[in-house]
Amino acid sequence: MSRNLPVNPDRIAEDIDALAGITEPGHPWTRRAFSPLFLEGRAYIEARMRAAGLETRIDAAGNLIGKRRGAIDGLGTIMLGSHSDTVPDGGRFDGIAGVVAALEVARALSDRGIALDHDLEIVDFLAEEVSIFGVSCIGSRGMTGQMPEAWLSRVTDGRDLAEAIAEVGGRPGVLQQQSRPDIAGFLELHIEQGPVLENEKKDIGIVTAIAGITRIEIIVEGRADHAGTTPMDSRSDALVAAAQLVLDIRNAAAAHAKTPGHFAATVGEFRIEPNAANVVPSKVVLLIDGRAEVRNDMEAFCEWLDEHVIKLAIAYGVSIKSPMRVSDNRPTPSDPGLLKTLERACETVGAKHRRMASGAGHDMAWIAKVAPAAMIFVPCREGRSHSADEWADNDDIALGAAVLFEAVIDMDKSLKQENA
Amino acid sequence: MSRNLPVNPDRIAEDIDALAGITEPGHPWTRRAFSPLFLEGRAYIEARMRAAGLETRIDAAGNLIGKRRGAIDGLGTIMLGSHSDTVPDGGRFDGIAGVVAALEVARALSDRGIALDHDLEIVDFLAEEVSIFGVSCIGSRGMTGQMPEAWLSRVTDGRDLAEAIAEVGGRPGVLQQQSRPDIAGFLELHIEQGPVLENEKKDIGIVTAIAGITRIEIIVEGRADHAGTTPMDSRSDALVAAAQLVLDIRNAAAAHAKTPGHFAATVGEFRIEPNAANVVPSKVVLLIDGRAEVRNDMEAFCEWLDEHVIKLAIAYGVSIKSPMRVSDNRPTPSDPGLLKTLERACETVGAKHRRMASGAGHDMAWIAKVAPAAMIFVPCREGRSHSADEWADNDDIALGAAVLFEAVIDMDKSLKQENA
Repeated sequence: MSRNLPVNPDRIAEDIDALAGITEPGHPWTRRAFSPLFLEGRAYIEARMRAAGLETRIDAAGNLIGKRRGAIDGLGTIMLGSHSDTVPDGGRFDGIAGVVAALEVARALSDRGIALDHDLEIVDFLAEEVSIFGVSCIGSRGMTGQMPEAWLSRVTDGRDLAEAIAEVGGRPGVLQQQSRPDIAGFLELHIEQGPVLENEKKDIGIVTAIAGITRIEIIVEGRADHAGTTPMDSRSDALVAAAQLVLDIRNAAAAHAKTPGHFAATVGEFRIEPNAANVVPSKVVLLIDGRAEVRNDMEAFCEWLDEHVIKLAIAYGVSIKSPMRVSDNRPTPSDPGLLKTLERACETVGAKHRRMASGAGHDMAWIAKVAPAAMIFVPCREGRSHSADEWADNDDIALGAAVLFEAVIDMDKSLKQENA
Repeated sequence: MSRNLPVNPDRIAEDIDALAGITEPGHPWTRRAFSPLFLEGRAYIEARMRAAGLETRIDAAGNLIGKRRGAIDGLGTIMLGSHSDTVPDGGRFDGIAGVVAALEVARALSDRGIALDHDLEIVDFLAEEVSIFGVSCIGSRGMTGQMPEAWLSRVTDGRDLAEAIAEVGGRPGVLQQQSRPDIAGFLELHIEQGPVLENEKKDIGIVTAIAGITRIEIIVEGRADHAGTTPMDSRSDALVAAAQLVLDIRNAAAAHAKTPGHFAATVGEFRIEPNAANVVPSKVVLLIDGRAEVRNDMEAFCEWLDEHVIKLAIAYGVSIKSPMRVSDNRPTPSDPGLLKTLERACETVGAKHRRMASGAGHDMAWIAKVAPAAMIFVPCREGRSHSADEWADNDDIALGAAVLFEAVIDMDKSLKQENA
């Protein structure tokens, strides 16, 4: 890269490579939350934070925070961050790119002797990925008092989540009282985890919203008949009906995806009963994962689905219970002011950018519920993530870090003016 | 039933009820081959054979045989039989109705003082159902030297099949040398295990053939992408492609079913990977169970399938390996002479009958490879079998036994003439 960036790409590469080395052997790149490797990774990050002159601490929710004090007391905190935990067998960049880029911003500010008026905090959020406790975004929810208390009692491998949070240095007993009214603005950098930026040869995706996630379970019930003896026209085949449903869901989702705003629906879980070679399938249980940037799209999809399964059940001679929303989160829009800040920063560093929604969930979604927040995507190869194939070019991450750097300087001024 | 039958329906009901009582508690009706309950059931059957004046023995393949000597030595054996073992949780009539009906024929002949010229054998074939050793029709294959020798080494629960056959009284060491050139004709009565007779209000199905069974495995491979972030038009979704395939297979099978000769194709096994809510399915493995009375139908179906998956893979952007025939058995036609014998017998007892194929496999299929053989179906409620819901009316079984009775008297004459 020939650009003269305000950040140092080599330091970013050094940190990401070092953390990639802290992985389960034979399972690149695995550093799951609460594991000894996770703590080893955090020790590296904390050492790098201190080397950058940051004061480090673990907050009540088990987040690792490096702080740089601002010139003006009480002006609030500009926060940057992401997460250092990974899914099993994947996560060389997912999360950690955002932590390292944030850290590099702090280092670059020091290099240039830039004093901010706001406090600056670099955060490694605890357990953004679905952890061994079966839940995600523990740190970002916990920091802002949004973690359901019941989660603390979830038990895995002989300990509950409360104990696990305490082991990483958090204070589970006071989690419900957490709030962070001091956050003046939050930014997260993350790999896109999709193919759009790469396909369109863009450098930066400016995330307009975290899509809402709606999970819908559907149960199709037919009749288990002998596959050899039951005439084709005398069957109630749950798999045949469910196959039609899978195609119809895909077509409905593709139609919504053509209208403005990100939309996707995927049948990701699908199992049949009795799953025996010589028996007509009697039951299919499937789970739809729906994502919508525009809430009305999801409402329309669900309305269509409710009506459609009734018609389908009649047409295929099966029984389909009403689709059940097992979870339903609304979209989280980014802060409009910060979107403009990020666009200005992209122009400053010469990054080709586009606005886009995030189909995946991120820590930003939880911070955005209590403070102005936004995020940027950097390209990743073929959209791969949560896999050993995950790859992002260091130059792309460095350009993203430069955008964060310019945005922070911009925020330090603009957020103050807003509050003035 | 007001008919004056040559058999005694009460004795049939008594035997079937008695055997229904020999079941695993809470799992009606379970009497799996090689289990203590199976041997208990056989002890009952053997006692009833002896009470009917039959000489009993266990042959090398572990079949329980009750014999009534004929008047003319060397004329050969008329054989009747089915099986007393069950699948788990199902089999109140499946198999046992044929054993008891055969036994009742022997009793009815004695009641009326009828001496046959042929020897008559009543057979309870060993392990017709898929047993704990994972294979089926052990007795009928074994009796006729058709059991693969390698099966004897199959191990389950710490013993091999050879030991298990020995435990029920068979002689596994001489199984490969078995042959039964003396069988002049074989008949089996069985519940239909399908809905045709009940729907058409017929008393008897005269089975023209045991359909061939062809099992075909297909693997559909797509790409595991993030379900939230991957645009609908950038996916390679193995489940969506496989769903289309399931519908196409069903439609192709329905078309074949409309031409003469039984045809069915069922996707009974179907599993997806990674089967995770937020991941686009990367792989589907499915198994087709195809049944054809007419071999050309199956050949045409397989030819269509081979070509179709190529088109489908292109249309859906997935990869589909060539369908693999994991097993492929040709149809087994019944003996044409015996079909006429059975039709005459139906007319004699006044049973409404129709010709039909058997979509399911039966012991008859193995005997038919070495001797003239045929079978009759009696109606069963809603076509249910291999389930606790399985039911056949005793009057229907008794009418079937009467058809066997008349057929045996007919065969005793007609088979002699054929051989003269």
